[in-house]
Amino acid sequence: MLTKAQLEKARKDAIAFYEKAHIVLTEEEKNNIEVADFGLGDLYRTGLEIVTYVNTERCCAKEMVLFPGQTCPEHRHPEVDGKPGKEETFRCRWGTVYLYVPGEPAAAPKCQPPTDDPAAYTVFHEIELKPGQQYTIYPDTLHWFQAGPEGAVVSEFSTKSIDEADIFTDVNIKRIPEVQE
Amino acid sequence: MLTKAQLEKARKDAIAFYEKAHIVLTEEEKNNIEVADFGLGDLYRTGLEIVTYVNTERCCAKEMVLFPGQTCPEHRHPEVDGKPGKEETFRCRWGTVYLYVPGEPAAAPKCQPPTDDPAAYTVFHEIELKPGQQYTIYPDTLHWFQAGPEGAVVSEFSTKSIDEADIFTDVNIKRIPEVQE
Repeated sequence: MLTKAQLEKARKDAIAFYEKAHIVLTEEEKNNIEVADFGLGDLYRTGLEIVTYVNTERCCAKEMVLFPGQTCPEHRHPEVDGKPGKEETFRCRWGTVYLYVPGEPAAAPKCQPPTDDPAAYTVFHEIELKPGQQYTIYPDTLHWFQAGPEGAVVSEFSTKSIDEADIFTDVNIKRIPEVQE
Repeated sequence: MLTKAQLEKARKDAIAFYEKAHIVLTEEEKNNIEVADFGLGDLYRTGLEIVTYVNTERCCAKEMVLFPGQTCPEHRHPEVDGKPGKEETFRCRWGTVYLYVPGEPAAAPKCQPPTDDPAAYTVFHEIELKPGQQYTIYPDTLHWFQAGPEGAVVSEFSTKSIDEADIFTDVNIKRIPEVQE
């Protein structure tokens, strides 16, 4: 759970990264940046900052910030109501992001999972994305990603987002942010 | 039809606009920018420059350049093979773009259609998009758009693009670019 002060600080910090990437946001978008701490209470280590541009029945686009070394934890997008799970393309706009998917583990990985729990992260094939590079994740594929030491700004182009349906490998995670009133 | 020299000049000119908008492209993307003159042979008046980041069965994202005053002509995205037509969200990243859709015509429109043929443009409700502003076009809705005098860079987030299925109001238009060998 985030306090309102933590939420506002994270939004302010995220705006600085959008500015570095020359991403123009409206005031309304800045005031409503989603700050996900995944219920772990350690936002700058495990978390994600998100502006959702559009999310209709058919497609979705987001602009995401990862603080330096911040991790979006391992999850997958399952089938919902008989419809295929979310498909998403990550395109790095600024900084560096390391994406981990099923496959041959990196011999010398650039990142470590932000946990000591060996059950929380299970896929370790590494894909490095620098600005202009992208990768498409098909439905129900486990993945996690972590920013390099300078942070990252990443666009996501996808089918509909149904975040509450996401399945995280770490059973302690709650996807939908809770803010203390 | 474009000559190879015209195609290469347009790509070079488009790259300058992507750079103004701080959009990072790979060398491969730069070398393959789609230049659409819509078969009218007057590219800088009626045309569009496009980088397609991804176009799968389910979703598509493009980064488009409009040169100063350049128009993407009126068209709609019909149902194809029993599937709903393309839905697309335009988000202005740099410059100004004027989008025209069905509805009350603008009393003092910022743009004029780039033709004297009154049958080629039929919708005149005006939506001005500056950086950070966006608008969603649902399937089978007529629309056209024109850049302001400084040009524009516009992201498109959409369902699958099937450009050859687009229906243009101007019967002289050919959507798929032809380049003279």
